[in-house]
Amino acid sequence: MKATARAHTNIALIKYWGKRDEQLFLPMNNSISITLDRFYTTTSVSFREDLSADVFVLDGKEMGGHEREKISGFLNLVRRTANHQGYAVVDSLNEVPTAAGFASSASGFAALAAASTRALNFTISNEGLSILARQGSGSASRSIYGGYAEWHKGTCQDGSDSFATQILPENAWDLSVLSVMVEARQKKVLSREGMRRTVETSPFYAGWLDSLEIDLSAARDAIHKQDFEQLGTVLERNALKMHATTFGANPPFLYWTGATIDVMQVVQELRENGVLAYFTIDAGPNVKVICQPADEQVVKDRLLELECVQDIFLCHPGPGIHYLTT
Amino acid sequence: MKATARAHTNIALIKYWGKRDEQLFLPMNNSISITLDRFYTTTSVSFREDLSADVFVLDGKEMGGHEREKISGFLNLVRRTANHQGYAVVDSLNEVPTAAGFASSASGFAALAAASTRALNFTISNEGLSILARQGSGSASRSIYGGYAEWHKGTCQDGSDSFATQILPENAWDLSVLSVMVEARQKKVLSREGMRRTVETSPFYAGWLDSLEIDLSAARDAIHKQDFEQLGTVLERNALKMHATTFGANPPFLYWTGATIDVMQVVQELRENGVLAYFTIDAGPNVKVICQPADEQVVKDRLLELECVQDIFLCHPGPGIHYLTT
Repeated sequence: MKATARAHTNIALIKYWGKRDEQLFLPMNNSISITLDRFYTTTSVSFREDLSADVFVLDGKEMGGHEREKISGFLNLVRRTANHQGYAVVDSLNEVPTAAGFASSASGFAALAAASTRALNFTISNEGLSILARQGSGSASRSIYGGYAEWHKGTCQDGSDSFATQILPENAWDLSVLSVMVEARQKKVLSREGMRRTVETSPFYAGWLDSLEIDLSAARDAIHKQDFEQLGTVLERNALKMHATTFGANPPFLYWTGATIDVMQVVQELRENGVLAYFTIDAGPNVKVICQPADEQVVKDRLLELECVQDIFLCHPGPGIHYLTT
Repeated sequence: MKATARAHTNIALIKYWGKRDEQLFLPMNNSISITLDRFYTTTSVSFREDLSADVFVLDGKEMGGHEREKISGFLNLVRRTANHQGYAVVDSLNEVPTAAGFASSASGFAALAAASTRALNFTISNEGLSILARQGSGSASRSIYGGYAEWHKGTCQDGSDSFATQILPENAWDLSVLSVMVEARQKKVLSREGMRRTVETSPFYAGWLDSLEIDLSAARDAIHKQDFEQLGTVLERNALKMHATTFGANPPFLYWTGATIDVMQVVQELRENGVLAYFTIDAGPNVKVICQPADEQVVKDRLLELECVQDIFLCHPGPGIHYLTT
């Protein structure tokens, strides 16, 4: 009745931006990601007869309130799926620099989905795990897989066809992802709220959706061909479009700071000098710079020259969920 | 056969962004502006029998090439309109800090339209002058008027109904416009090229046009009511939307630098502290901050604390075209 699983965080190259169902975490559009080697969550789940409620321990500290409720809500889903009644102890260790603006929800819910089903000896496919993890956090659906993955939005109302699949495994194509920290402040508009406001009020949201199929097929094709320039061009364009939609929201909002643009400009300048590097930005001020492994040192050195850069974390494609013996 | 006219530059509160006819400078959408007191062009035009070509003197220096051709092309239009054959000497003085990123084309072509028609004793309405000036530079159509003006896009193919009218004269409502210079570098994508690329390739351009009527009527209504908060809210939102359209262009482009965002954030922070200030941004990195005269000093002082701010020019609503005796 106990199992331990590890899942790695991922960054979206083609962004998940907007939900069609907030309860089931069903997205308005497909997204494509790279799972990262360096940041992950390790979670043990142990179903026990002697508990009167779920227990959630995060980084050695027992959590209550909203944090525990969220985990318990997710375990209810697992219990329903696996037809089991008992409570569980969930013990999670995050190797994710959340203080530096990284989200641990993708790796967190992917690891929890894997460990909890395994603890119940419940046989489940990767697609099933992806559907389950998705209901904790949308981007967790992609962290089931190593390397390059695509989350298919699906069309069913119950979400049964909204899961990720792998495009290419992590060892098939090495890329360097530099996570450039420019600021550790809490973001003002959470991505959940930002998505909602954008979908409901931005005159650009329709243009975002309309132009997405082109981005998705360009990205998919580039990954299959391992064409870095094609992939970089489309991922940078896609990130800019996602952020543009927030400018049109009412009231408008920006995730960027001045430093965000400074980093973007250095990346464009690197390209003008023949170094293929591209940026993507999530719902916060930090920038992820993607380049080929042969260029990672020159890109890192140039970025560190910027005064506004506090730290850089270097990642490569990482593995999907795996189980640890405890 | 000689006349001197002065016209002031203007800044758009609701942006002119996209042409439906590049030759006639016909816009895709209406725009609304404030004419500024501090920056202007003074132009003398003298039609003479002894010339074999037009002469263009700018700030005391005789111009050739493309500069003179543009003026000559415009004078051809005036000669055709006024049914006159002779060449002219055009002598212009710019009180516009063009090196700091200000455009002198609006005041320049408005002054040239006024001086050249007056030199020929050609009677023309303000609307007629606006149509004429528009064919030198779109935004010049608005500089005919003092205070607050709206350029109506029109629907005729020949542009005969595409001219500006005054919403409110300059002495009716005083506002402070702080032009914040963050960088004197040449912008990389000229507004003409930027507009074209956006109209042709951005999936957001339709959303820009669709949402414009709401902005226009909110701005018009705010100016009539002299409701600064309503005007500020819509002008800031409109500027963000204009820039968002460029992010979606293919290839995407940005007019901003890190400093642009730093200034934007200080403006938003001022508002959080109860000081009503709003920003607008044109096709370049500089920011114009608009506030009420009672707040101009506190806004200026706060902006000057930013290291990235090189200079601030303070303006108020200025007059329309007027003629000088020489």
